[in-house]
Amino acid sequence: MISRSDVEAARARIGSRVRTTPVFADGDRVLKLEQLQHTGSFKARGAFNRILAAAEKGGLPDAGVVAASGGNAGLAVAYAARELGVPAEVYVPETAPAVKVAGLRALGAAVVQVGREYAEAYDAATKRVADTGALFCHAYDQPEICAGQGTLALELEEQTGGVDTVLVAVGGGGLMAGIAAALEGRSRVIAVEPHGCASLNAALAAGEPVDVEVSGVAADSLGARRIGEIAFAVARRTEVTSLLVSDEDVIAARRDLWRRYHLVLEHGTAAAYAALLTGAYHPAPGERLAIICCGANTDPSDLTERGASTTTE
Amino acid sequence: MISRSDVEAARARIGSRVRTTPVFADGDRVLKLEQLQHTGSFKARGAFNRILAAAEKGGLPDAGVVAASGGNAGLAVAYAARELGVPAEVYVPETAPAVKVAGLRALGAAVVQVGREYAEAYDAATKRVADTGALFCHAYDQPEICAGQGTLALELEEQTGGVDTVLVAVGGGGLMAGIAAALEGRSRVIAVEPHGCASLNAALAAGEPVDVEVSGVAADSLGARRIGEIAFAVARRTEVTSLLVSDEDVIAARRDLWRRYHLVLEHGTAAAYAALLTGAYHPAPGERLAIICCGANTDPSDLTERGASTTTE
Ligand SMILES: Cc1ncc(COP(=O)(O)O)c(C=O)c1O
Ligand SMILES: Cc1ncc(COP(=O)(O)O)c(C=O)c1O
Repeated sequence: MISRSDVEAARARIGSRVRTTPVFADGDRVLKLEQLQHTGSFKARGAFNRILAAAEKGGLPDAGVVAASGGNAGLAVAYAARELGVPAEVYVPETAPAVKVAGLRALGAAVVQVGREYAEAYDAATKRVADTGALFCHAYDQPEICAGQGTLALELEEQTGGVDTVLVAVGGGGLMAGIAAALEGRSRVIAVEPHGCASLNAALAAGEPVDVEVSGVAADSLGARRIGEIAFAVARRTEVTSLLVSDEDVIAARRDLWRRYHLVLEHGTAAAYAALLTGAYHPAPGERLAIICCGANTDPSDLTERGASTTTE
Repeated sequence: MISRSDVEAARARIGSRVRTTPVFADGDRVLKLEQLQHTGSFKARGAFNRILAAAEKGGLPDAGVVAASGGNAGLAVAYAARELGVPAEVYVPETAPAVKVAGLRALGAAVVQVGREYAEAYDAATKRVADTGALFCHAYDQPEICAGQGTLALELEEQTGGVDTVLVAVGGGGLMAGIAAALEGRSRVIAVEPHGCASLNAALAAGEPVDVEVSGVAADSLGARRIGEIAFAVARRTEVTSLLVSDEDVIAARRDLWRRYHLVLEHGTAAAYAALLTGAYHPAPGERLAIICCGANTDPSDLTERGASTTTE
């Protein structure tokens, strides 16, 4: 479990190692432009907090840090480790696209390709940690990771003077947990998932974390098989609302973000905005609403059809 | 000629019809994210100021407003006119891409296609204005247009507490003139042009506005044949520095903006950033520098090669 004080401690610890990302107001809605963060997503916040917290408690292991992720979490751990002068190993499946492996290597990480599925890479990573004593950086289910992600909510609060409601996309729930803990008793948090990545929704229905089938356009960022224990506990404690959107809605929302604001965001991020666009979440008049734009590691080429024609506003 | 008081008047006049665009600090450099403006560029500021100033001075002509531009200026006039409930006619060459014509029509403008070159469309537009008494909105060389563009500099000043230096791309010079007038005696303004769009550079060398040959990747936004009279006068009065960059530098700068910040910007905008990246402009240690990100009406598909590989930071 984490609470606001953990997030405050994370913020003090991380300091200026992460960027303060801007907010952008359009009427009563505010977009937090966290895709401008180092490596293109909020994940750098948690990675720094995890590594720095371990360093405080008696130094970092010589074996460095280990992550299992071919996506934003892996990039963020590689970046944070490099900035802190710590070796990083990132485990990914053999099926990981060459461009992702190259991206991790460009950040100085040693990339280990194991197995055909993410689960095999994950198992190899945890075995490596057990063998070497390296520090494992989970993609979402560690208190320091969740608290680190939550620092963006403290920024948001200062930048806006506080909002009524935050819309956030959920994968394993680290980001949601950090935000909900940071804003407990202050803002309502609405967790949005595509039908194909419904780990939180299914857990709330079942009363406990359960495995879900993963599919769809946002699976690369939101496709955790099971919501994190921390995320589930925080969601229940702070009464997070869970909403589902369709893949079609996510695709349309990503296109709308480009047409309306010229923002290129990945499908995972567009899920939160989709809840607003479809009316799945319907704000009251004057309700101050924040949408977390959390990642931009996407191929923008499918936005091209509208590229030259600009806005439909 | 315009001065800071004209820009202040423009800001009061325009009010909340334009978006306050965020700034984003990375160390001592600040990016003003004006591509988030309505229709994707700063041009909406000047368009609103021009139309609203005319409305104040005795009402708008029944014939509405006329512009000659297939680019950002045309889109902005179409948008502002629609928001203000005024008919808009936009003149473009017959060679204008269908997607641009469709974009203007989507904003409610009547599009008139005349001649093979921009100059012919421009002549037809001014003739139409003479015939009907419609209000002409020039792309850069009218005091209200320049003063409107300058309002982004007043925002920038408030958002940052002031900067030492502003890097800005120049086409016909309306944006530069507005910024230089707004920040006269407060910040140094560095005007950046690609070699193929050197209207200001050539004018400063010649001692007066002269025609230049136009070419290169940024010609669609920066390719004015001759710097505006207002821009030239303001540049001389406020001692604007002129720098040139190559097309290769502009292309590399646009890619770097995507890789480093996940910002999609058009080549015209990337010119200002190119001056920094190449060292053509070399800030002193601790110098507070702002880069104006002014437009995003671009096709992002050529950024794709790096799309999934994220950052090189
Ligand atoms: C862009 C983006 N958004 C959202 C998420 C979901 O974050 P979490 O797993 O903390 O719920 C991720 C996770 O990788 C992501 O990369
Ligand atoms: C994105 C962008 N940047 C810069 C400019 C240049 O502006 P100006 O003609 O006022 O110098 C333009 C003009 O269209 C533009 O569209």
